[in-house]
Amino acid sequence: MANRLLIIGGVAAGAKAAAVARRRDPSAHIVLVQDELNISYSACGLPYWLAQDEGIDRHRLIARTPEAFARERIEVRTSQHVEQLDVHRASARICDRTTGRTYDEPYDNVLLATGAQAMALDIPRIGSTPVVAYLRSIADADHLSQILPAMQRAVIIGGGYIGLEMAETLLRRGLQVCLVEMMPRLLPNFAEAIGQAAREALEQHGAEVLTGQRVVGLDDGRVVLADGTALAADVVLAAMGVRPRTQLATAAGVSLGPTGAIAVDSRMATNVEHVYAAGDCVESRHWLTNAPVWMPLGDVANRQGRVAGINMTGGTAAFPGVLGTAIFRVFELAVARTGLNHAQALAAGFDPVTEVLEAPSRARYMRASRTLKIVLTVQRGTGLVLGGEVSGEDAVDKTVDILATAIWGKLHANDLADLDLAYAPPFSPVLAPVQLAGDVLYKMA
Amino acid sequence: MANRLLIIGGVAAGAKAAAVARRRDPSAHIVLVQDELNISYSACGLPYWLAQDEGIDRHRLIARTPEAFARERIEVRTSQHVEQLDVHRASARICDRTTGRTYDEPYDNVLLATGAQAMALDIPRIGSTPVVAYLRSIADADHLSQILPAMQRAVIIGGGYIGLEMAETLLRRGLQVCLVEMMPRLLPNFAEAIGQAAREALEQHGAEVLTGQRVVGLDDGRVVLADGTALAADVVLAAMGVRPRTQLATAAGVSLGPTGAIAVDSRMATNVEHVYAAGDCVESRHWLTNAPVWMPLGDVANRQGRVAGINMTGGTAAFPGVLGTAIFRVFELAVARTGLNHAQALAAGFDPVTEVLEAPSRARYMRASRTLKIVLTVQRGTGLVLGGEVSGEDAVDKTVDILATAIWGKLHANDLADLDLAYAPPFSPVLAPVQLAGDVLYKMA
Repeated sequence: MANRLLIIGGVAAGAKAAAVARRRDPSAHIVLVQDELNISYSACGLPYWLAQDEGIDRHRLIARTPEAFARERIEVRTSQHVEQLDVHRASARICDRTTGRTYDEPYDNVLLATGAQAMALDIPRIGSTPVVAYLRSIADADHLSQILPAMQRAVIIGGGYIGLEMAETLLRRGLQVCLVEMMPRLLPNFAEAIGQAAREALEQHGAEVLTGQRVVGLDDGRVVLADGTALAADVVLAAMGVRPRTQLATAAGVSLGPTGAIAVDSRMATNVEHVYAAGDCVESRHWLTNAPVWMPLGDVANRQGRVAGINMTGGTAAFPGVLGTAIFRVFELAVARTGLNHAQALAAGFDPVTEVLEAPSRARYMRASRTLKIVLTVQRGTGLVLGGEVSGEDAVDKTVDILATAIWGKLHANDLADLDLAYAPPFSPVLAPVQLAGDVLYKMA
Repeated sequence: MANRLLIIGGVAAGAKAAAVARRRDPSAHIVLVQDELNISYSACGLPYWLAQDEGIDRHRLIARTPEAFARERIEVRTSQHVEQLDVHRASARICDRTTGRTYDEPYDNVLLATGAQAMALDIPRIGSTPVVAYLRSIADADHLSQILPAMQRAVIIGGGYIGLEMAETLLRRGLQVCLVEMMPRLLPNFAEAIGQAAREALEQHGAEVLTGQRVVGLDDGRVVLADGTALAADVVLAAMGVRPRTQLATAAGVSLGPTGAIAVDSRMATNVEHVYAAGDCVESRHWLTNAPVWMPLGDVANRQGRVAGINMTGGTAAFPGVLGTAIFRVFELAVARTGLNHAQALAAGFDPVTEVLEAPSRARYMRASRTLKIVLTVQRGTGLVLGGEVSGEDAVDKTVDILATAIWGKLHANDLADLDLAYAPPFSPVLAPVQLAGDVLYKMA
């Protein structure tokens, strides 16, 4: 009998799992249900679509349409809300939002790919403006796309990567932008110099940045801060972070982990038989510490979806964990991290040594060369590479990816110094930034 | 008594060794003798200086002047030719080219950093034109810089990376360029698709490319090929390759290895006590196979110079070997390699699996995204990553550096697929090119 696969959620992990499952099992009966109207889109691309100057057509954000899935005999049902998962009967109670009809969908294996949702802005509001918007789904982006032409002044609440990326987007569209961050500085999980660089990038492009400030209310066209400041705004972008969507899971008896996201093993299986989970709704293991961490990122979701798709069709694949690698851009500035920073390394029981360095991204005499900041953390004594942060206007992605690969390979500071990397003046200085950092940390460790 | 260090040659390895030795041993007596007038310069930067459009001042190619060395109490003597090394008396016979005077310089430890020299164009010549030029030293570049303004038509002999880089340089300066390569295609050590891409890059920018053609003579303003073709030229750039400068070494009883370059151990020590060697005149060990390989590259020379400088001052450092990583640019196209290609892997006793793939460099909808070609080679069965070639107009350096780091860490194809790399649309597709390649080769291996 055909394997009946039910996939709940279809942005990244769900869409990937469905596609992988189909490739592996031509006879499987695959149903993908999605709360929203849209599936299989690049949520990470939304700020660049909204910025307009990249010239991205909306349809290019869609990796696979429902019709494309249908050609692969994957039945996609959009605007379907899964109300309940009955794991004893192996059936989902689904409400079709378009008709209001409720029906049961039996399964042999189910994947929870319910994602994460934006933290709601839960403050007193007086009056109808400013408009409160979010950027999580493509529907959020469509909403912003509609309203932004009439907007002049935006307040962004939250200095995480969505807040910073959207500050760039809104500035590129000509809005006045004020970004309000509760913490005393931007990017509190990064080295201070990197948070400062991000702040400068925003300010140089005309944003106002307020740190250590809390938004307490919206008062008829103004955003009110805890200290009484009132910021005039047409639109408020609430970007205070996200949390995993786990209601369906917990109601069905699926366990969460200590991070509050769904706990899965390396096969992406939950504690309940035949129930898998992947993507932003699950926690991962940190590759270095094996500790549970929650990393709601598109590439992680994609790789987890692949593993789930294989295991749900009788294969054996393991998701090996994450390093917490991440990157984002604020205008010319790129900011990235991988592995453990000093505080995380201490908390994980390592004896870390950390140093902040600067290095040119290419041969100094080449016009494209820029100064990189690197924060490298290694284990004292052994020099085992634990983590790094990189910021600058060039080669940040390359540098952090070399570090991530080095951590994956359990390399040490002296290995970084010795690595045989690609040198030519247009691409690198003769001693690459990671080599310089490796050499310095080797001597310090 | 102070350690008397004599360093023969001061471009990359020699200059680095001198600087490292001084930092480690403040009391050492350090003399650096150099055949040429110039020391401590970026030979790899010469094509970009000559191209003019990078706006590089010549002095920026000089890392350290003789005066800067003097401030560190390193005595630099330029235009000094070392005629003989008497390893029994531990003394060098040196001829000062400016005075013609010959003198003996005793040492406790000597470093041979004599580099490599361009293969001479040894063909019959009739008449005084075309001018034959080389690009190896900064003096060669000065010569070219002087003569190029009067030149219109150039023939480049040799399609190695110097030939390709100089083709770009001369085209940027407005010369007509014809490149003649003896082999049936450009970059014969790369996959055919990559050699073809390099050819197209040159041709699109107006170069004529002749492959499978040998230059047999210069006949009064024309370059004559074996098939009788005569190419009008004002200048001929002879870029047929380089060979290690080993005369001084062999005359002193220093052994060469099977590649024809000086044999050294991992400490950069030769077979003769107190005689070290580093840079383009020595062979290295391949990191994967431990086989001797000759890699005359600036970054390798630099790292070897550091190791020699440490060991010559009583320290212990080891040069771990090379992967043969290299990169160069032809206009927008970048071409890079690391590790073993299929043929090299076979020759080294591996059972390789190789596949050619294409992947976007960034999220497909981002304007800066370009298609990369990746040729990945892994060991059959285990999937151990053996080598890769990459070409394209974006992220080639990043991709090859991730591969080089992966090989250093003994990673396998499935590790490449699983790597936690930095994803955001401006920097990478959700599945990075190396991840895609790793996934494909994992299935094939």
